[in-house]
Amino acid sequence: MTTVNSGTITDVTGFRAAGLHCGLKKGDAPDLALILSDRPCTAAAVFTANQVKAAPVIYDQALLARNPDALRAVVINSGNANAVTGDRGLVDAHEMAAVAARAVGCSADQVWVMSTGVIGVPLNMERVGPGIEAAARELSPAGGHAAARAIMTTDTIPKEVALRVQTRSGHFTIAGIAKGAGMIHPNMATMLAIMATDASVPPDILDRALRHAVAASFNAISVDGDTSTNDTVVLLANGAAGVAIEDEDSEAYRQFARALTAAATTLAHAIVRDGEGATKFVEIRVRHALTHADAQRVAHAIARSSLVKTALHGEDANWGRVLVAAGYSGVDLDVDRLNLWFAAAGADETEPSTRRRLHLVQDGQPHDVDESAAHDILAGSDIEIILDLGLGDAEASIWTCDLSPEYVRINADYRT
Amino acid sequence: MTTVNSGTITDVTGFRAAGLHCGLKKGDAPDLALILSDRPCTAAAVFTANQVKAAPVIYDQALLARNPDALRAVVINSGNANAVTGDRGLVDAHEMAAVAARAVGCSADQVWVMSTGVIGVPLNMERVGPGIEAAARELSPAGGHAAARAIMTTDTIPKEVALRVQTRSGHFTIAGIAKGAGMIHPNMATMLAIMATDASVPPDILDRALRHAVAASFNAISVDGDTSTNDTVVLLANGAAGVAIEDEDSEAYRQFARALTAAATTLAHAIVRDGEGATKFVEIRVRHALTHADAQRVAHAIARSSLVKTALHGEDANWGRVLVAAGYSGVDLDVDRLNLWFAAAGADETEPSTRRRLHLVQDGQPHDVDESAAHDILAGSDIEIILDLGLGDAEASIWTCDLSPEYVRINADYRT
Repeated sequence: MTTVNSGTITDVTGFRAAGLHCGLKKGDAPDLALILSDRPCTAAAVFTANQVKAAPVIYDQALLARNPDALRAVVINSGNANAVTGDRGLVDAHEMAAVAARAVGCSADQVWVMSTGVIGVPLNMERVGPGIEAAARELSPAGGHAAARAIMTTDTIPKEVALRVQTRSGHFTIAGIAKGAGMIHPNMATMLAIMATDASVPPDILDRALRHAVAASFNAISVDGDTSTNDTVVLLANGAAGVAIEDEDSEAYRQFARALTAAATTLAHAIVRDGEGATKFVEIRVRHALTHADAQRVAHAIARSSLVKTALHGEDANWGRVLVAAGYSGVDLDVDRLNLWFAAAGADETEPSTRRRLHLVQDGQPHDVDESAAHDILAGSDIEIILDLGLGDAEASIWTCDLSPEYVRINADYRT
Repeated sequence: MTTVNSGTITDVTGFRAAGLHCGLKKGDAPDLALILSDRPCTAAAVFTANQVKAAPVIYDQALLARNPDALRAVVINSGNANAVTGDRGLVDAHEMAAVAARAVGCSADQVWVMSTGVIGVPLNMERVGPGIEAAARELSPAGGHAAARAIMTTDTIPKEVALRVQTRSGHFTIAGIAKGAGMIHPNMATMLAIMATDASVPPDILDRALRHAVAASFNAISVDGDTSTNDTVVLLANGAAGVAIEDEDSEAYRQFARALTAAATTLAHAIVRDGEGATKFVEIRVRHALTHADAQRVAHAIARSSLVKTALHGEDANWGRVLVAAGYSGVDLDVDRLNLWFAAAGADETEPSTRRRLHLVQDGQPHDVDESAAHDILAGSDIEIILDLGLGDAEASIWTCDLSPEYVRINADYRT
């Protein structure tokens, strides 16, 4: 598995893309993306768990049920989520698909629709329609970068990845683009990812591989704990590489699943690093829980705690707040078995033996509370918090970021 | 029931108090409070639900179990929570009680102990001990105000209340002081309240009345969703007024319970208004849920949403975020039955018929989305958000505040 330099979704054979400004956002920021495969694709998707679902999510869920093996295009607008827009929202989502289908020469049932942005405002179809037609004229084998920019909302950088995998029967590519920023949480809030591969994969295998990859990537990140109306990860496989992934017990499947998880994880971590106002990338690792679900629950409680996240922002070794969050997570703890470490992480710290690491709580008692060493660790941009529950053999990690005044500013004024 | 002007805990007959600086906080900010009844008191208390409990909480829970009807004093320090301080923390909590008992002339088993402040740092008993002795010398029937100031941490104003109740057999007083600011959430995070009455109430009746009052007050507020190691509400009844509350079916009991709930609600709302960085006081009211628990769960999800709270701070009528939070609350919704209103609240808006109120979502569809009217409502300091689920007959309210950049600044630098 090798990473394609500056790789993006159009590094997958047979895919073209475009991104442009159609007029939903102010100024000239791009707000419309179109992605097209030159042949039909099998598809799999994971959707938001929120009960309040945006129109495109309702539309895509029905589409996937009736047509999981012949998709051609994905059309995405940013600047407006087409959520809580009532019956009109569904009509508009359908219209986006119909316009895109006419423009690229396929049927409406072959077009996936995604939206992200403000909630509760009807889509301006007078701008979206001509935007889709213009994007169809601009489709290019180098257009992935433009598409990645056009799906951004409060993101400051586009998120893109492409991985090449050599198998016995040839190589294939897995790639994707994503947008995130605020509202990121397990269950993928206001998060869109469009992934593609030129391997040939039947829908049921694609679905299993995607669910596995999402659990370890997009569903293991948290920015502010909110989940949204629009979150969707879609994966298209067009078979253009001539490599077939048909048997889940094959080495080729394992290579495919590993690469898919790696690509999804790269996109998910990029979303956390670009979290609204984020200055720190933090792994919350909970070890020796009774069950994986317990470990996740404790990790989520810590990752969601505003007090933990503000202390991280302030580079304040207020480790007590980590225990406090564990204490209200709802998971039964034995306080006398808790062990807590802060550790430096990231590129400079890859060798575990030389990592700066501080054992702050040992068996429930304050231990090596060296404030200056703790501050040194927190001053870095990559931090690991390890909480050992001392109860069982399960563990889980969640990736999150700090909470800064900038986050509040972004979200207080989001619509203005 | 009448409110005592500038009332405080020492408006209760037989209570004296003091507050002073013993040296736990920097500068000369008061950090030690002592409250004394001239006769033994029955007691009831509600404690944090966090599994990581501070030493004084563990100490008080055992004390209440063995001595619920002869307490005399409450000693409280701020600046240090005596939490996650290991075995030494328990020794220090016991020592605080012992020093206070010697200083006021009672047994250690008659002294309640509370701490609030930084977690994980041992108490400096060389300062606390002499501080308690000095406070004993300063006890005064007007000392409630000083005690209320001495228990503050990031609070900007002391929280005090005293209510006088006329019954057929004479009058009694219920009063209290509290501290809150950050970490306030249902289940009372980093929240201390000391309440007192000169009615005579047996421990079991006191306990029931207190639990009822706390459910409707301290457990119905939320600042940042975290719950702490130290939260405690304690209620002492010394009988000095000569009014006995012995029968739960009596009018006197109902008067007592109402006054206790009113006093607790006054303190709880004062905590939200003084939430770290708070500029808005917001009631989240969920109506027509299937069960009270469902209504609470939806209200909590909304009250905890960073996106709702930042939008409120920005006076941005981003009402979609309210539906989003309801959508991930875990409660089954029928989106087509949802109705949402924003309303102005507060002192100027007591007459429901003249209230400014905007019906933003009707039966799941955007309705009267008048941005400028919505902004007018949000520009006020008191706001009501009403979400009708259209499913049943239960309702619940949660009081919360907005999330400001100031909150982040306070909590990023809390220990420095």
